[in-house]
Amino acid sequence: MGKGGKGTEAAAPAVAGEEENMAAWLVAKNTLKIMPFKLPPLGPHDVRVRMKAVGICGSDVHYLREMRIAHFVVKEPMVIGHECAGVIEEVGAAVTHLSAGDRVALEPGISCWRCRHCRGGRYNLCDDMKFFATPPVHGSLANQVVHPADLCFKLPDNVSLEEGAMCEPLSVGVHACRRAGVGPETGAVLVLGAGPIGLVALLAAKAFGARRVAVVDVDEHRLAVAASLGADAAVRVSPDAADVGEEVARIQAAIGSEIDVSLDCAGFSKTVATALEATRPGGRVCLVGLGHNEMTVPLTSAAIREVDVVGIFRYKDTWPLCIEFLRSGKVDVKPLITHRFGFSQREVEEAFEVSARGRDAIKVMFNL
Amino acid sequence: MGKGGKGTEAAAPAVAGEEENMAAWLVAKNTLKIMPFKLPPLGPHDVRVRMKAVGICGSDVHYLREMRIAHFVVKEPMVIGHECAGVIEEVGAAVTHLSAGDRVALEPGISCWRCRHCRGGRYNLCDDMKFFATPPVHGSLANQVVHPADLCFKLPDNVSLEEGAMCEPLSVGVHACRRAGVGPETGAVLVLGAGPIGLVALLAAKAFGARRVAVVDVDEHRLAVAASLGADAAVRVSPDAADVGEEVARIQAAIGSEIDVSLDCAGFSKTVATALEATRPGGRVCLVGLGHNEMTVPLTSAAIREVDVVGIFRYKDTWPLCIEFLRSGKVDVKPLITHRFGFSQREVEEAFEVSARGRDAIKVMFNL
Amino acid sequence: MGKGGKGTEAAAPAVAGEEENMAAWLVAKNTLKIMPFKLPPLGPHDVRVRMKAVGICGSDVHYLREMRIAHFVVKEPMVIGHECAGVIEEVGAAVTHLSAGDRVALEPGISCWRCRHCRGGRYNLCDDMKFFATPPVHGSLANQVVHPADLCFKLPDNVSLEEGAMCEPLSVGVHACRRAGVGPETGAVLVLGAGPIGLVALLAAKAFGARRVAVVDVDEHRLAVAASLGADAAVRVSPDAADVGEEVARIQAAIGSEIDVSLDCAGFSKTVATALEATRPGGRVCLVGLGHNEMTVPLTSAAIREVDVVGIFRYKDTWPLCIEFLRSGKVDVKPLITHRFGFSQREVEEAFEVSARGRDAIKVMFNL
Amino acid sequence: MGKGGKGTEAAAPAVAGEEENMAAWLVAKNTLKIMPFKLPPLGPHDVRVRMKAVGICGSDVHYLREMRIAHFVVKEPMVIGHECAGVIEEVGAAVTHLSAGDRVALEPGISCWRCRHCRGGRYNLCDDMKFFATPPVHGSLANQVVHPADLCFKLPDNVSLEEGAMCEPLSVGVHACRRAGVGPETGAVLVLGAGPIGLVALLAAKAFGARRVAVVDVDEHRLAVAASLGADAAVRVSPDAADVGEEVARIQAAIGSEIDVSLDCAGFSKTVATALEATRPGGRVCLVGLGHNEMTVPLTSAAIREVDVVGIFRYKDTWPLCIEFLRSGKVDVKPLITHRFGFSQREVEEAFEVSARGRDAIKVMFNL
Repeated sequence: MGKGGKGTEAAAPAVAGEEENMAAWLVAKNTLKIMPFKLPPLGPHDVRVRMKAVGICGSDVHYLREMRIAHFVVKEPMVIGHECAGVIEEVGAAVTHLSAGDRVALEPGISCWRCRHCRGGRYNLCDDMKFFATPPVHGSLANQVVHPADLCFKLPDNVSLEEGAMCEPLSVGVHACRRAGVGPETGAVLVLGAGPIGLVALLAAKAFGARRVAVVDVDEHRLAVAASLGADAAVRVSPDAADVGEEVARIQAAIGSEIDVSLDCAGFSKTVATALEATRPGGRVCLVGLGHNEMTVPLTSAAIREVDVVGIFRYKDTWPLCIEFLRSGKVDVKPLITHRFGFSQREVEEAFEVSARGRDAIKVMFNL
Repeated sequence: MGKGGKGTEAAAPAVAGEEENMAAWLVAKNTLKIMPFKLPPLGPHDVRVRMKAVGICGSDVHYLREMRIAHFVVKEPMVIGHECAGVIEEVGAAVTHLSAGDRVALEPGISCWRCRHCRGGRYNLCDDMKFFATPPVHGSLANQVVHPADLCFKLPDNVSLEEGAMCEPLSVGVHACRRAGVGPETGAVLVLGAGPIGLVALLAAKAFGARRVAVVDVDEHRLAVAASLGADAAVRVSPDAADVGEEVARIQAAIGSEIDVSLDCAGFSKTVATALEATRPGGRVCLVGLGHNEMTVPLTSAAIREVDVVGIFRYKDTWPLCIEFLRSGKVDVKPLITHRFGFSQREVEEAFEVSARGRDAIKVMFNL
Repeated sequence: MGKGGKGTEAAAPAVAGEEENMAAWLVAKNTLKIMPFKLPPLGPHDVRVRMKAVGICGSDVHYLREMRIAHFVVKEPMVIGHECAGVIEEVGAAVTHLSAGDRVALEPGISCWRCRHCRGGRYNLCDDMKFFATPPVHGSLANQVVHPADLCFKLPDNVSLEEGAMCEPLSVGVHACRRAGVGPETGAVLVLGAGPIGLVALLAAKAFGARRVAVVDVDEHRLAVAASLGADAAVRVSPDAADVGEEVARIQAAIGSEIDVSLDCAGFSKTVATALEATRPGGRVCLVGLGHNEMTVPLTSAAIREVDVVGIFRYKDTWPLCIEFLRSGKVDVKPLITHRFGFSQREVEEAFEVSARGRDAIKVMFNL
Repeated sequence: MGKGGKGTEAAAPAVAGEEENMAAWLVAKNTLKIMPFKLPPLGPHDVRVRMKAVGICGSDVHYLREMRIAHFVVKEPMVIGHECAGVIEEVGAAVTHLSAGDRVALEPGISCWRCRHCRGGRYNLCDDMKFFATPPVHGSLANQVVHPADLCFKLPDNVSLEEGAMCEPLSVGVHACRRAGVGPETGAVLVLGAGPIGLVALLAAKAFGARRVAVVDVDEHRLAVAASLGADAAVRVSPDAADVGEEVARIQAAIGSEIDVSLDCAGFSKTVATALEATRPGGRVCLVGLGHNEMTVPLTSAAIREVDVVGIFRYKDTWPLCIEFLRSGKVDVKPLITHRFGFSQREVEEAFEVSARGRDAIKVMFNL
């Protein structure tokens, strides 16, 4: 597995051992290369993890296509990947809660703990976050990575490494539900968009206790998947600028009640408009999937009904809850993993193509 | 005036007494008529109040011009007016906390206390609210009105009846500050629009403990008023679709810090865009002044910084706090009252013209 | 005397009509008498309900024994009972959401909707609450009662009238969970006391999403019931002033984690002490079952760990959620109903004796 | 760089420079010695601060008398002191927001940022907090200390170093007000105990916007100080177990309203009982000053009125707000500083005696 590489001279890599650490580098638009990746030294609070499962996220595909997302620009070759789990190989001198052999899921963002956001309890807004595969920080699609021990969460025996890697997308659903106030008193949730993020939002909403969840999408296949994952209603809508009022009426009829919370996982003006109009007075809309920056939406009619609109930036403090949801069976992410690939140059290229194509591919997973 | 008594003949208004109760009726577009207004019977929990001060609100002018606001349509002649204070003339049999002669400010909305919103603590969203001068409910620009006693709040000696009437617009600012979470930990508030609502938002933000408040408007005179009322920065902006980023930079420079909370009191896409862009990550934007329904705004960039967007519908449970703010001097609304009129046909017409013209008119008040 | 049933002659409304409405009156210490109970007139927002299921609460027994609870003293004969459900016989002129034949659960407290607590969203603290069987207000152990329609909640087909009556005790558990912040992120809840209130607290905590619930009691039988209802750990403790630290250690070992929330349903200094000591830093203790007023407890050590201590007074706005929990099967209250009695003088006396004796009696229910 | 100071001999301290760093060591019960204190190396995120103002806290005196507080035991000689401000002498390689010469106030606790409490936003509950002068961590009554830069907060020009040192006790008042929910909507606050903590609680409550604050104490002089600092009522009570009801009536009469929030800064069963009984239904009691662990208090009557009881452990994220309160003049701590001493063996001993004696001594301050 992953020997390749450059011919490595002397000074045995941080990893120790003869093996050379290989990683998938984003080197140019549409170009990924498996190349050696020198690990940083292991700090006292760090662990070295052998990666076992790494999923492909829409943002990974976006970086591959565009070399940028918003103001984050890939200027130097960068290791890609951030949805991951693996096995501890070595622990730093000060680490006491983990040891070699432990199976762990990795939270990808290292916050500074010095800025007002970190100190104030919202570390996901950290002014100086270092996040896997957000330039210029390297990602985790590699044989091994070094990571802070407190961002590595031990998996129970009944949770697989692939499921561990799924904690990352699931965290998006969990953070969205928290921000939207989904809980046992929530009657009905509307999820707009049945892509990977919409589906984890559905799973999270159910796990948070929402009584009914309706999912809307333009694609019948995706809706069928949503239904199989527990959606109480799956409503096909048209991508065209149709009559929002009629669409809202159809959704409410399908779910049989008004909507308390809407989670927009598509990011179009049209889906946000539907979310705003469908949500009951005093309810909440969370923007989860982010698309165009400028949106033309009926914001005033939402405001006057005191429908709050909130967004999310990544997540914070979600791994323990995700792992508990997986352990207890409240959430089952396994059906989301539709494709698996090994870690060779050919397979990496193919895996990203499959993921980019969408269709029947929900989550594409590398087994390293 | 107001001798009262029961024994009255014929057509005698409900009020009883020889006097006939007169009110300002909206009878057609741009047509107000002072005509008799028969009062309903006094219920056990009601009081009869002789109106002393009634202010003109933008919504009153809007009804006069259009005979409608959104889906509220004036189909039958309707008494106008809802910002008011007066003196108790008679109390219902079950009323114990008020008595004749008491000076009171009136909260204009009677909620049902039976719907989920009322029972759930958000009575302003009541499914069956009866609100002064919202069709088909009559307003309070009249010699006398009958109103529930629990919506009549006694004024302290050092608070005038005009100030009492100002509790209504001030309540909008108070509810906005509550919804936006303004408090002693709020560093900087941005108020967009220096009309009557923007100015009460400014006053409320100060009273809630915000350290600094910046006000922006297109009009120099309004900005001067804002400055005189305590704005820490008054920034003139252009109504044209200018560079929002540059405008935000100017605002932040003027106030000397980032913005925690923005209160949009103008309701244009442009002002909402400025509010969204100016507010710091984790901050909050409250839509107070409502304009066009469809808005084209950078909602995604706000969502990704976890800037919450909330709106308000009227207010709830604000009168006691407003009166306390006035009593203690934390808020001084007197400078907002720029014009005063008596209650004759000619003066009513003139007063609405002055109010509609805007300019130097902030609050136009009737003294009855 | 209570002919009840359906097959009664003619139009005979209780209110009038030939049938006489009978009720169980508390007339003196330890003396209940079934006697006629004249119904008040039916107001426009009222309904007349034929009672079908009425449960006995500990407070009913307490009134029977002592003719008082705290400062509420029974000075005049009073109809007893407040956990109830029945069938609508007649609706007031303004009632639109209910009609004759509807099966409903009754919320027993009529709040004033005029005081600051009602207006502020906490109507259970109403200064002027009229509550079934809290002197001097009559209760609902009667053939028929007249009650406000908005306090009568329609039962779905799959929820029985007995279950409807159980909404009242279940509401105590629901309100406790709300006040204690129990939800899908709550890891472990400790319930102290496995009497009727402890058991509904257990059921509510599970329905609110708590992962694990431990129940402690001094009685093996009660613990067995708790375990059969879903308690993840049932721990027998001694009533004596034992070593609280050792007890806490045993509880934590049994549940396998620290305690996030404790619900004290016993009301002894000892159980409160255990709750305070067992709860993790930053957790919450809710006092549900109320005993002696003065308590000797380690309050300082809880304060310094920022363990919040909250109490409950009845409940607010809980019926819709309780009914939804029953409808969906999230909560099953049927096992709590251990004894059933008809509505005759002899049976009423016997039922109260059974309820007072405790032991195997959890909930004693009248079928009228 | 570090020249200053008091005749310094040999043994070049880590600090560099010829000067030896001296500190006040707690070496045995009632024994403080000024002795050399070797500074740790300056990490990249640290700063070296020349102490200028250090206040004496009640806990310092307690350690001196008992060599322990609760389970914190002084086993090895320990530098004392934790209320402090000074001037930056040197900054670590990664520090960008501070530079030599900056005047700063120091937050004394270094949290781990790895435990669930730190990650969850409540770092004051950190499982591994390192806090000035809490054994075995050294304090800050020294010529110089090394401290993390993010715990050093720059003082504005109009805030003195002594006022900077006062941010520490003021933080206790601020954290108490946050936990108790004091704000612009709080009508009346009751502060029990007019010692140093009671007085900062009074100042904080006023700055948070409470309309009226009543202070009770057994000592006339302390009450006079409270009144001079802005207490709206100062009520003398007896230390004996008097009639709590009568005392509550006197307090409410003095403040002219019910009490929304009580801050117990004394820590006796009697003061907590008064706090519980005096606070209105739905209000909140915060335990700030902590005394005996076991308390005998009317907890049930508070619970049934839904009076929440919360405590505090130190504070979190308070320095920026404290500094802003001082800068803006919302809080004036200068009158609390009643005694000043230099940093010699004799003066250190005398200062602690004065502080321990209490009486007219509120805050005793060292000027180094």
